[in-house]
Amino acid sequence: MLRQVTLEDIRPIAIGAGILGTGGGGNPYLGGLHLASIIRERGPQTIVDPFDLADDALCCVVGSIGAPTVSIEKLPEGTEMCRALRLLEAHIGRPFDAVAIAEIGGANSMQPLIGGLQAGIPTVDSDSMGRAFPEIQMSSFLFDTDATAAPLAMVDAADNAAVVPAAVSDVWAEKMARNIAISMGARAGLAGTIMSGAQVKAAGVHYTLTLAHHLGARVIEAQRQKSDVPAEVANALEGEVIFQGKITDVDRRVSKGFARGGVRFESFSGADVLEIEFQNEFLIAFINGDVAVTTPDLICIVTEEEGEPVTTEVLRYGTRVAVISAPAPPQLKSEVALEVVGPGAFGYDVAFSPLPGGVIGLRPGD
Amino acid sequence: MLRQVTLEDIRPIAIGAGILGTGGGGNPYLGGLHLASIIRERGPQTIVDPFDLADDALCCVVGSIGAPTVSIEKLPEGTEMCRALRLLEAHIGRPFDAVAIAEIGGANSMQPLIGGLQAGIPTVDSDSMGRAFPEIQMSSFLFDTDATAAPLAMVDAADNAAVVPAAVSDVWAEKMARNIAISMGARAGLAGTIMSGAQVKAAGVHYTLTLAHHLGARVIEAQRQKSDVPAEVANALEGEVIFQGKITDVDRRVSKGFARGGVRFESFSGADVLEIEFQNEFLIAFINGDVAVTTPDLICIVTEEEGEPVTTEVLRYGTRVAVISAPAPPQLKSEVALEVVGPGAFGYDVAFSPLPGGVIGLRPGD
Repeated sequence: MLRQVTLEDIRPIAIGAGILGTGGGGNPYLGGLHLASIIRERGPQTIVDPFDLADDALCCVVGSIGAPTVSIEKLPEGTEMCRALRLLEAHIGRPFDAVAIAEIGGANSMQPLIGGLQAGIPTVDSDSMGRAFPEIQMSSFLFDTDATAAPLAMVDAADNAAVVPAAVSDVWAEKMARNIAISMGARAGLAGTIMSGAQVKAAGVHYTLTLAHHLGARVIEAQRQKSDVPAEVANALEGEVIFQGKITDVDRRVSKGFARGGVRFESFSGADVLEIEFQNEFLIAFINGDVAVTTPDLICIVTEEEGEPVTTEVLRYGTRVAVISAPAPPQLKSEVALEVVGPGAFGYDVAFSPLPGGVIGLRPGD
Repeated sequence: MLRQVTLEDIRPIAIGAGILGTGGGGNPYLGGLHLASIIRERGPQTIVDPFDLADDALCCVVGSIGAPTVSIEKLPEGTEMCRALRLLEAHIGRPFDAVAIAEIGGANSMQPLIGGLQAGIPTVDSDSMGRAFPEIQMSSFLFDTDATAAPLAMVDAADNAAVVPAAVSDVWAEKMARNIAISMGARAGLAGTIMSGAQVKAAGVHYTLTLAHHLGARVIEAQRQKSDVPAEVANALEGEVIFQGKITDVDRRVSKGFARGGVRFESFSGADVLEIEFQNEFLIAFINGDVAVTTPDLICIVTEEEGEPVTTEVLRYGTRVAVISAPAPPQLKSEVALEVVGPGAFGYDVAFSPLPGGVIGLRPGD
């Protein structure tokens, strides 16, 4: 696994997390530029193996909350993650030992590196999704565990701040945090989901930063060799290229603090149509009107030639893409988890048919 | 001035504050029932003269935030004010000595009595409006002073809570608090605007709880004597009855955490029309299409016979009413104040023509 993240690691992580993010998590290119500027200033970030955490280590997650479409227009001030961490520390009166990753998608794979570097604490190689999801409660750190999303702390690019000391449930924490994020311009830095090291070990989707790096490195190598990059991505995730074609329509709006909408693709022959609906992340894919893939399994869009991630905020008419489906990590497929991240949680009256296999959340060498 | 509030004082305060509230502040009848239950449990609430506060006394305001229309459907749990106070105390690490009144309108005239009683601290006979206004920054405690709306603390009827430790400005504090209130169902208890005793003395609209009580007592006496109650209300406030008639249309919706809309009246002869627009509170009145009164001057609606307040949430077709205009307290009419509470602050391109005279904010005996 990765032991540190240097300047050279940023591009593979950005590509890998951009793909794993299933459209969301914030723009990986901009996240990479931000991380690079912090690493230039402070040196590499230390990555800690989740199983090396002391059981009583104090951890939390950090990330951006809001609509990815906003993240490319309203740039961060740069210290949001660290300020959110510090605000949460002040609220609970204890310092954190390490920061875990809320979602390994897009720029949110890098925010815990940026926040950890600025706060002087390591980042744990574990996230809670193995992908990205739009809402706070959609986290393996919270499924059937004692951890709770609140207390949480939020800051914006200016001097606005908010703390949610307590919530009736993680869904209520999400409601409050989302509305606070809306008042902060649909983009805010958030620290929350306080956990012990033991809780991270028990509930995390492990080694996903390493997985993102590995995936991105395979993409870069395949690009160099001019081989079939989308096929390489599918292989790396034990997934499948389910469609190749171009974007013919995008309906994307910022609504209630999310980027919501749908995107339509036609195959190059014009014979087949793929439609994907999203709430920050790609949630469900229909081929010629039939359900092909649903959340929590991954729907990833990459450019046809280069296999670079195409995230929600950069979907545009005419882009030639490959669409890949890949199996979600096992942590997202328990009965309890599916109530929170399955198709029904997003209002789709569709049963979840898990794709077979999968590598997300496996230990390196498994 | 009032030295304490007993069960007998509730009805006059409810009537007086219902009238002063210019439609807003929450339903005074329900607020009165709540206050009565707390006084029965704990005895009368002590009222402190603002000029008896020590200069270094620590004070804040408490009140409900949200849409008054919601306040009659979503009843409080009952300890919101006290829990908000305690949360704010925990955040700043100091206990409050007294609680001031954010707005002397409707139920929000009574929330500081309820919260003070439950917290075991007195209520100051000062508010920051001499009426009610829909937004947090619309407070004389904040005009041209060193006090700020944040830190503020909010709780709902369940176990949801939020703290805004800092905001770029009072307007930003309002934006965050409003969105938090929306996530709490458009009704929440709020404690904020931390002040010293010296600041309360310098910036408050004083003795308005006593004024509300006095006004309500005059209404009750006029009702007993079967005299012209609306004329009595107008006299008490050095105002004027500007219209008598019945409600012929109400357009009222809950939007972005406020009750917004308009109400139309016809004179009993049918010859004249009065229209009032509101955002929680009555903001502007037009008689036969011409502007007759604007914020910050008071527009009060009372029932034609009994002179009882008609608040935003109980406006309904057919009610026979008198509409009274009354001059705002001087604290709301400075250049700085008018930028925050004048017609322009609510989007009306109308100059403010102050009504002459007025008694709100005068010391008893002035």
